[in-house]
Amino acid sequence: MKKIDLPGPMIGIDLGGTKIFTVVTDTRGKVLAAAKTESRPEKGVDAVIKRMAVAAQAALKEAGIKKKKIAAVGLGVPSPVDQKTGVAMLSPNLGWKKVPVVRMLTDQLGLPVFADNDVNLGTLGEFTMGAGRGARDLVGVFVGTGIGGGIVVNRRLLRGLNSTGGEVGHMIVVPDGPLCGCSNRGCLEAVASRTAITRDLLAGIGHGVPTCLRELLRDSDNKLRSGVLSKAYRRGDLLTVEVMNRAARYLGIATASLINVLGTERVVIGGGVFEALGDLLLPVVRQAVHEHAFDTAADGVGIVPARLGDRAVALGAVVHAAQCLE
Amino acid sequence: MKKIDLPGPMIGIDLGGTKIFTVVTDTRGKVLAAAKTESRPEKGVDAVIKRMAVAAQAALKEAGIKKKKIAAVGLGVPSPVDQKTGVAMLSPNLGWKKVPVVRMLTDQLGLPVFADNDVNLGTLGEFTMGAGRGARDLVGVFVGTGIGGGIVVNRRLLRGLNSTGGEVGHMIVVPDGPLCGCSNRGCLEAVASRTAITRDLLAGIGHGVPTCLRELLRDSDNKLRSGVLSKAYRRGDLLTVEVMNRAARYLGIATASLINVLGTERVVIGGGVFEALGDLLLPVVRQAVHEHAFDTAADGVGIVPARLGDRAVALGAVVHAAQCLE
Repeated sequence: MKKIDLPGPMIGIDLGGTKIFTVVTDTRGKVLAAAKTESRPEKGVDAVIKRMAVAAQAALKEAGIKKKKIAAVGLGVPSPVDQKTGVAMLSPNLGWKKVPVVRMLTDQLGLPVFADNDVNLGTLGEFTMGAGRGARDLVGVFVGTGIGGGIVVNRRLLRGLNSTGGEVGHMIVVPDGPLCGCSNRGCLEAVASRTAITRDLLAGIGHGVPTCLRELLRDSDNKLRSGVLSKAYRRGDLLTVEVMNRAARYLGIATASLINVLGTERVVIGGGVFEALGDLLLPVVRQAVHEHAFDTAADGVGIVPARLGDRAVALGAVVHAAQCLE
Repeated sequence: MKKIDLPGPMIGIDLGGTKIFTVVTDTRGKVLAAAKTESRPEKGVDAVIKRMAVAAQAALKEAGIKKKKIAAVGLGVPSPVDQKTGVAMLSPNLGWKKVPVVRMLTDQLGLPVFADNDVNLGTLGEFTMGAGRGARDLVGVFVGTGIGGGIVVNRRLLRGLNSTGGEVGHMIVVPDGPLCGCSNRGCLEAVASRTAITRDLLAGIGHGVPTCLRELLRDSDNKLRSGVLSKAYRRGDLLTVEVMNRAARYLGIATASLINVLGTERVVIGGGVFEALGDLLLPVVRQAVHEHAFDTAADGVGIVPARLGDRAVALGAVVHAAQCLE
């Protein structure tokens, strides 16, 4: 991880639908303490805010840093965040709608808080401290249950009119294709996320296609986690390889479109699926980009794996907070 | 056309594969003189540069402005232009490869020259003086023989790593779809440009589909110009309506992807096809956007017709030159 300059020690929080991940960093972005706790959104908004405050206090204690030394708190939430009001607009994962999360956490912590969409901040984290370092423009794509993304143009996150900028997962790559969670059809997420891969694998199993997945599923509570996919793929299981390569190819096609349209310098690909299988899937993505992007546009573009793992959002939140203090 | 503030009277040149269009403006961007001449690229680079210089001198004379009063010359060329060196990288239309067009025209005119890709400048023209005025972020799409585009982010043209930014026509909308002029398959240009529309209409005619196009073609040298398409569409010709609505729908799907990814505030659609039929095709585009974009992302996004017609590039060139002087 590359070091950066911050206006003081910082707190970074990654609020997800199931976990809260908190880091405390020194003024160079070095992680002094990190903690994970459950988010429990079913207990209501106030309870989640309190759990974040408690987690932050505990991380401070572990880091041996006094609260008054902290310059600011950065927060990533699974929702578009209105940058003027600090309101989280809509989060299906948390069951939130128009929650003034910045004001609420500021009240709890007594520290300045700056929030943004989690995937935007993951992209910013990779851009500043991870695999995007040195680039001016970058696209981040994170493949897990869904597909999230973020776009950096001229060293700044692109947020757009309604704070929805960066929704790479909802580019339409197969018109009239499979139904997406967003109720549209043929989005990248509907053909290349783990959810889409699972749908296609289960269909294959249902149709009696020979595959070692049946056996692997029995050993893992019948859940197609990234680890299971990785095992089957590495064994050369034909069904798994075919389905996952097709997903990676669609990801490459969408990436090629983005490279042609944005003239992007670097593409960072992360998330559970690529953490487990990036060494085998990235070449498939690169090949599809090579086939579908302009030679001129793709010349010198790096398509690289994410480096910060599950710390990307919390570290990006720290960077975001520092930028807001500038 | 909206007025702007310029550092002095300016010259704007739109160099195309067949025509050179030149304007002289006053300090508010008002066109004092406009002239069209042939570009004749087959005569070689030097001859084209000279024809531009002669056209500029003639326009100055018509405008009654002395050359020494001119603050700068803006130039749009059908090629990516390296902004550091002023070299036009590659233009199939002109048969140019790495032509130092800025230096050459500066030598001829004895005035500062600033060049960029023509469609980028058309977008900048619409953004500053036409249908994009008042927006912060904008996508311009121009549908003619091909499909060109430009993207404005934070009031600046997005050029990207290899000066290819804005190539909206080469988003992949139908994986493994029809062959595109760029040698890729399924690009927007391959399914929604006039070239694609013509291909599909001729296929329909070849298959004996009933259509009034046969008769209209006889009256117009067998060429499917935008005017012919417009006549057939307005008569309700089923083949023409089906083919053109499908093209407009693909344009809407690509636009929806861009809105989701960029959070764009306004989309300006122009070019020959939409100048002839925008009143009937824009609603089809809007409907496809409505069906395919996130509600949150599309909320408040305007999809509007271009306003500057064939002056967009020359006027955008003037704006570009003024920005370069800043």
